[in-house]
Amino acid sequence: MEQRIRTRFTERFAIAHPVMLAPMDKVAGGKLAGAVSQAGGLGLIGGGYGDAAWLERAFAEAGNAAVGVGFITWSVMRQPALIEQALARRPAALMVSFGDGEEAVAAARAASVPTIWQVHRLSQAEQALAAGVDVIVVQGQEAGGHGMDRGLTALLPAVRDLAGDGQIVLAAGGLADGRGLAAALMLGADGVMLGTRFWASREAEGSEAAKAALVGATGDQTLRSKVFDVARNADWPWEFTGRTVDNAFSRQWHGDLEGLQRSFESERARYDAADPDDYDIRVLIAGESLDLIREIAPAEMIVTDVVRQAADLLGRAGGFLAAP
Amino acid sequence: MEQRIRTRFTERFAIAHPVMLAPMDKVAGGKLAGAVSQAGGLGLIGGGYGDAAWLERAFAEAGNAAVGVGFITWSVMRQPALIEQALARRPAALMVSFGDGEEAVAAARAASVPTIWQVHRLSQAEQALAAGVDVIVVQGQEAGGHGMDRGLTALLPAVRDLAGDGQIVLAAGGLADGRGLAAALMLGADGVMLGTRFWASREAEGSEAAKAALVGATGDQTLRSKVFDVARNADWPWEFTGRTVDNAFSRQWHGDLEGLQRSFESERARYDAADPDDYDIRVLIAGESLDLIREIAPAEMIVTDVVRQAADLLGRAGGFLAAP
Ligand SMILES: Cc1cc2nc3c(=O)[nH]c(=O)nc-3n(C[C@H](O)[C@H](O)[C@H](O)COP(=O)(O)O)c2cc1C
Ligand SMILES: Cc1cc2nc3c(=O)[nH]c(=O)nc-3n(C[C@H](O)[C@H](O)[C@H](O)COP(=O)(O)O)c2cc1C
Repeated sequence: MEQRIRTRFTERFAIAHPVMLAPMDKVAGGKLAGAVSQAGGLGLIGGGYGDAAWLERAFAEAGNAAVGVGFITWSVMRQPALIEQALARRPAALMVSFGDGEEAVAAARAASVPTIWQVHRLSQAEQALAAGVDVIVVQGQEAGGHGMDRGLTALLPAVRDLAGDGQIVLAAGGLADGRGLAAALMLGADGVMLGTRFWASREAEGSEAAKAALVGATGDQTLRSKVFDVARNADWPWEFTGRTVDNAFSRQWHGDLEGLQRSFESERARYDAADPDDYDIRVLIAGESLDLIREIAPAEMIVTDVVRQAADLLGRAGGFLAAP
Repeated sequence: MEQRIRTRFTERFAIAHPVMLAPMDKVAGGKLAGAVSQAGGLGLIGGGYGDAAWLERAFAEAGNAAVGVGFITWSVMRQPALIEQALARRPAALMVSFGDGEEAVAAARAASVPTIWQVHRLSQAEQALAAGVDVIVVQGQEAGGHGMDRGLTALLPAVRDLAGDGQIVLAAGGLADGRGLAAALMLGADGVMLGTRFWASREAEGSEAAKAALVGATGDQTLRSKVFDVARNADWPWEFTGRTVDNAFSRQWHGDLEGLQRSFESERARYDAADPDDYDIRVLIAGESLDLIREIAPAEMIVTDVVRQAADLLGRAGGFLAAP
């Protein structure tokens, strides 16, 4: 008989599995978010930097599946109408990440939409708790995409201790299989949020070349850096870095951001002129869990495999014990 | 009835608990290593950069307890007589970390002493396996002291997949309580190696002021940097950084290592002139698990508490499962 894993998270959201899709900008469209929710997890559309038309299409493509949406806080606060647009779709949850999410959380609460806040340091967990958020996602620096410098292993239990027993806490960063889910539960989480693992899925929006590059790369080859934000003149607050697959461009400039800034015009032009699938220059966002990803799988299979492996490990965990 | 946790590691070393003391330079003397082994774990003396007299004293202070010893590879290879000195004491294990440990491992094998190699990237695990090492320690960047940039959550299962089922693998970095041990086992480890948690112990060599500073600091306040190696002109290969508690000195120079190198004479003099317990200037090595450390405890209590909490979590892990 197939087993399920039940936690505060699955109970609160009335879902079968404690697995949430990270709201990856442009990668997590309606097809992927819908597939994760259909599989019994919680799919979040990647609202990212905000694009009203894309968002509308994503909700439409999710069909009848109950999906949530996640925004990049500092960016969406410049166009708060997007939050209203998203809330009007009655999403399963609204997630904010990277910046002060208090206003967005308040708007979602007023609309009775459950709220999620991704944190990267212990001090940010205090802020999220003060805002009365329903779910805290603790992201370790292993994660693909933007983040900060703290690792998951100590930060996660520290946030649990701070938040107390009743709070829903999810783990993110470097987790890609059932071992990661089981470990996260032992560290005090109520489930996991996976990004990179679902990026390498059939339903993710992105080219076949990008997905093949993900399968071909290892965690050792990823790098947390400012280099692509500087090259693209993204407005990211300086404290956030992004984890990507290392390439010729990042190797050239990671250690010399001032040089990149001095050569900005020509380097930006070179970047923009490159083929979109030329990952020697172009950014390929991904995390350290690339080591654990060997194929492009359907999202449903990912959810099922992660849960099956975790349930197996949890069921056998008592086997480590021996009478003295 | 008190429960024990049995793994390949406890079986191979005939110890009660899968908890190893990190060989912390000068901090892990004979008293601490002896106490950890007496408590049923495996204590390693911190051979560090190598100091024959200190090493002799440490082995003497460990008394009858079966302790091992760990060296900083690139440093001890400049004075290989220290390895012979250590092997002559018939240690429970010889550990190497930071550099090519092949020769040291070969010498230990020739003396029938079990070998341990700490790795920081997947590529290093390949090297350690090729050398036929008995135990691989996978260190995440959360760790106190020197290390590299990879987090533990993905690297640990990746090393397990690479090494196969028979290999003994331990986890290190950001782990300080039973949650960390239980999580490490779920990720594929056979036990844990704890540094920072044992640094904050009664038996650790170090001042009361240093230990009080550990208890007072948080994981958010730690920093992985080259700054103290540059300030002290340590010979560390450039790829290794050190995690310490952030202070006025590191805040001033972390972002400007070239400036520190230009001001080296005066800054080094200022550093050396500071009171040894002035942690606004002096280095205080510690990892992100400071969040989880609230008191200076006896080493035996640390071992017991970690194992009891982990055993409790493992014993109850099946409780997450529910029939669908
Ligand atoms: C391709 C990609 C795009 C991402 N975009 C976003 C984003 O737009 N907003 C956001 O909050 N997080 C984003 N993230 C980070 C995720 O929220 C999450 O923290 C991370 O994926 C978890 O780590 P993992 O990738 O190791 O699973 C992105 C991650 C990836 C891999
Ligand atoms: C005070 C201190 C000194 C350390 N010295 C050494 C050392 O001399 N040799 C070594 O291999 N590792 C050393 N380490 C790193 C440990 O081997 C280990 O990787 C680390 O302590 C594990 O992470 P944790 O501190 O989060 O438990 C040291 C760590 C600390 C905290």
